[in-house]
Amino acid sequence: MLIDVTDPADPRLDDFRDLNSIDRRPDLPSGKGLVIAEGVLVAQRMLASRFSPHALLGTSRRFDELAADLEGVDVPCYCASAEVMAEVVGFHLNRGVLAAARRAPELSVEQVIDGARTVAVLEGVNDHENLGSIFRNAAGLGVDAVVFGAGCADPLYRRAVRVSMGHALLVPFAKAQHWPGDLMMLRDNGFRLLSMTPDAGALTLSDAVPELAQDRVAILVGAEGPGLRESTMRASDVRVRIPMARGTDSLNVATAAALAFYERARV
Amino acid sequence: MLIDVTDPADPRLDDFRDLNSIDRRPDLPSGKGLVIAEGVLVAQRMLASRFSPHALLGTSRRFDELAADLEGVDVPCYCASAEVMAEVVGFHLNRGVLAAARRAPELSVEQVIDGARTVAVLEGVNDHENLGSIFRNAAGLGVDAVVFGAGCADPLYRRAVRVSMGHALLVPFAKAQHWPGDLMMLRDNGFRLLSMTPDAGALTLSDAVPELAQDRVAILVGAEGPGLRESTMRASDVRVRIPMARGTDSLNVATAAALAFYERARV
Repeated sequence: MLIDVTDPADPRLDDFRDLNSIDRRPDLPSGKGLVIAEGVLVAQRMLASRFSPHALLGTSRRFDELAADLEGVDVPCYCASAEVMAEVVGFHLNRGVLAAARRAPELSVEQVIDGARTVAVLEGVNDHENLGSIFRNAAGLGVDAVVFGAGCADPLYRRAVRVSMGHALLVPFAKAQHWPGDLMMLRDNGFRLLSMTPDAGALTLSDAVPELAQDRVAILVGAEGPGLRESTMRASDVRVRIPMARGTDSLNVATAAALAFYERARV
Repeated sequence: MLIDVTDPADPRLDDFRDLNSIDRRPDLPSGKGLVIAEGVLVAQRMLASRFSPHALLGTSRRFDELAADLEGVDVPCYCASAEVMAEVVGFHLNRGVLAAARRAPELSVEQVIDGARTVAVLEGVNDHENLGSIFRNAAGLGVDAVVFGAGCADPLYRRAVRVSMGHALLVPFAKAQHWPGDLMMLRDNGFRLLSMTPDAGALTLSDAVPELAQDRVAILVGAEGPGLRESTMRASDVRVRIPMARGTDSLNVATAAALAFYERARV
């Protein structure tokens, strides 16, 4: 369903309008709550995800690249020039295509940990780029699901989805209903809970993680700076650290998580 | 030397002026070529580096935090309100302090590899944030020096310095004069050259890196997307890869580098 559009004011494009406008942006839960995918690769991942787009807006070149992915997909594809697109979204979008989806129903913690061998559990990760990077790293390094504790940002925010390369749409995630109480549910399901900390008294990743190769593992990561709350760490089984060179304090939270995911996947 | 300043037009503040102005920003080599440190932590690292600041601009609160670091340091410290600072730099700077240094003389590849056990070699890393992250990861994970091949961005650009948390000022780096010819110099100095690639035929990090524990190692990383040039990979000894989960393509270049650095430091 390729539909040529030449009028930037066309109301059919409203779900893509003013993407940078703070009070109207369509990707906020307080607004339309839409999920927006940018670029061919992320749009492809959205099409493969449980967030089915209800409309796309792009240049003809990008729709050509998406032709195979869109076969049999019955959604309106609004085809416009780069100039018209820029007027609609409010800035020049060099990725050339956008897809919009409504938010799928949220999954429960029980649902996302079902069958999972490794899950990431985040607390206080309130930066969209870090959140997106964690999803990208989780997908690349074999983490099966993400559980959000208190204080995390919205993984479906446009920038988080973009930085995740679309993996925020594919890696199952759930928000804990009780925090840190839901950690007990993980433990009841056989997960060993590993809290990441810069504390020099903690075990190194390479000492702690390989021992648990036969176990289900949850890797708990806190925000850069404050880290995990003490009450959260107390609710976990093992405190683990990355061995750091002298004179340095910490790594970016998504990088630290990637090292734990890597150690977990390492054979 | 705390000097109160109330006039944003004061010419003594010119090295901190219009930091976001594309054609005048002082941190470009084509401009004044200054190195700018933002925030207490990065200013501390600048003071500990070979880039000695010739002036600082900050709020009295930040100068209080820097008091111990500035003891015996004979440079003018311009103390201003947050409002005056914002007028000078062109935006509100919530880090509250800036330090400016002239560029120290460049180091040679010979100098930075002297005594190094592990070096990172970058090709085509032209994104300042990725470059900054690589320096932060190098510092945290025990990489002794960074060598720049063709096509890399300026590590002393303000954003690179900020994202590196100041480690771009502390981890020695040098630009290759001949590329990829200078790789031979590394090999002549006993380095084993490891090229990172997503190629499924390459050895995994965990297969390749621990074997070289007794050797000097250079880890070669290319830009996200294109990766290392084939000619560069041919000039290396071993091709190494990160084992990736199915359906994923690649990690961010700084994250990929961090995993290699981690494997190298892992015991």
